[in-house]
Amino acid sequence: MPSAPNPTAPDAALRRGERAEVSRALNDVESTLPDAATRTRERLARLRAANAFARAHTVGITGPPGVGKSTLAAALVRALRAAGRTVGVLAVDPSSVRSGGALLGDRVRMTLDPADPGVFVRSLATGGELGGLARSVPVEVLVLSAAFDVVLVETVGIGQSETEARHVVDTLLFVVQPGSGDSVQFLKAGIMEVPDLFVVNKADQAEAEATARDLRASLAALRAAGVATEEFSVVSTSATTGAGIVALVEALDAHRARLLASGQLEARRLEGTTAWALTAFARRYGEVGMARRGGREAVRRAIHAELEVGRDVLAALDELDPFAAK
Amino acid sequence: MPSAPNPTAPDAALRRGERAEVSRALNDVESTLPDAATRTRERLARLRAANAFARAHTVGITGPPGVGKSTLAAALVRALRAAGRTVGVLAVDPSSVRSGGALLGDRVRMTLDPADPGVFVRSLATGGELGGLARSVPVEVLVLSAAFDVVLVETVGIGQSETEARHVVDTLLFVVQPGSGDSVQFLKAGIMEVPDLFVVNKADQAEAEATARDLRASLAALRAAGVATEEFSVVSTSATTGAGIVALVEALDAHRARLLASGQLEARRLEGTTAWALTAFARRYGEVGMARRGGREAVRRAIHAELEVGRDVLAALDELDPFAAK
Repeated sequence: MPSAPNPTAPDAALRRGERAEVSRALNDVESTLPDAATRTRERLARLRAANAFARAHTVGITGPPGVGKSTLAAALVRALRAAGRTVGVLAVDPSSVRSGGALLGDRVRMTLDPADPGVFVRSLATGGELGGLARSVPVEVLVLSAAFDVVLVETVGIGQSETEARHVVDTLLFVVQPGSGDSVQFLKAGIMEVPDLFVVNKADQAEAEATARDLRASLAALRAAGVATEEFSVVSTSATTGAGIVALVEALDAHRARLLASGQLEARRLEGTTAWALTAFARRYGEVGMARRGGREAVRRAIHAELEVGRDVLAALDELDPFAAK
Repeated sequence: MPSAPNPTAPDAALRRGERAEVSRALNDVESTLPDAATRTRERLARLRAANAFARAHTVGITGPPGVGKSTLAAALVRALRAAGRTVGVLAVDPSSVRSGGALLGDRVRMTLDPADPGVFVRSLATGGELGGLARSVPVEVLVLSAAFDVVLVETVGIGQSETEARHVVDTLLFVVQPGSGDSVQFLKAGIMEVPDLFVVNKADQAEAEATARDLRASLAALRAAGVATEEFSVVSTSATTGAGIVALVEALDAHRARLLASGQLEARRLEGTTAWALTAFARRYGEVGMARRGGREAVRRAIHAELEVGRDVLAALDELDPFAAK
């Protein structure tokens, strides 16, 4: 009589960061097949019970195209590997098919050692749909959180409440290049989400210091206006020469340490997951479904309550189905 | 015995652009009360039957904050009024409450003659929610189309399929200022929607010519890559000195004339309304509702069919309710 498969063996492989198992788990998340959804739900529930997500530091890398996010991500990966930490990279490319060009993830992968088992890179092309971020990325980040010490999520940053990268990661890093103006304008107008850490990349350029100074002034103004209460860090880097990368790693670690020390890490993850689940609820069940469940605030509270008692977010969404036969 | 109110009297007032009636109609659109929704649906059906929307040229003005969209809109209004045309302005301000500052519409209104009955300005604060554009703006544009010769829609342009301004207007104008880099990057990456007409504003600045040249090069590259097949126009303006404004009006008229001559105007409006209605369907009924109606493509075809036989878009959305008792 064959013994039943032991689900903890794949979980252990995933938690060791074994490529095949991590890929399998991410394939399940991206799949639209009901079986895959069930496997994901069960996998996440087991990993949650084992407190497997706490180890990772999740870091979002956003910024307009062309500022060198991929090169910076690759430089970060090398610095983290040199420090003995494993890294999972999720590169979300919302550019439309028509624009052509390599996937973000390919650009990161190209410059890394393919034989290093401590690095895992996954590309996700969302075909022009930024909303794709809201759909599967948060769950993929969760899977990677169980497998690696640091999870980097690289994406184009455009503020939109539904797609806020800060709901997905512990630390949100925003990359600009010297002379950037439009992004700071979006930020000032309150349209673009406020990151935790700014990186002025390509800092070998002459304007870098002026850009960093402008950014610091803008950020001071934002704080004075009450938009943000925290201290912002601005780090200048050159991903090509490697200048500033160690300082950036230190700034990332310092941000996570602050979140942990103040008890905000758990709170932020809970709030982020709640916000994502609320968006997912609206997407799945519509305004009609939202109204049947008593409106947006009632649904938010219901989701929050489910998450607080440790229920998995995907299970919570099924549980709250307003159209389910009673 | 009192006679029944004659709905054509208010419609006639609206079509003459009478302020009180236009305001009343827009209030109905923005209201969440069922009575108001019914009035809007009936009003639009009557106006559609009277072919009241064909007269207007609807023009979207997008671009990052700080490029002078409001000043440009005001300069355009003055030039159009000087040519004897009436203008309705819809200023959509997605900036969050926390950022403070004047509403976009107020900035336009301030510089115009308040006694001129040929100009109407409406502000719409969406409180940080860009999705607000998708919700009521297209219907407000329709109302204004029945009342004025030209309808200007001013908003912050960030590409997102759900909120594409080009679905709402005949001509989409994108404003940059000299030295802008990030916006062009978004555009190149296929993330930002492609406008019909570019305006380099603040063209009294030294970098204006270089920016216009860069834009033309980017646009040529976009055309070569097949992203866009049309000829792009780039117009340099200075909204403060008035330089280039007449050329801009001519470029706008030329674009509309091209659309009319090629029969694209009707097609574009139909496609735009279909795209907006599909988003509205998804928002209202969710993925669950979409699946019940056979999926996204089936819903798109159903909406398109309803619109082609002349049904009003709001009525079509009610008609397709997947949860309605049969």
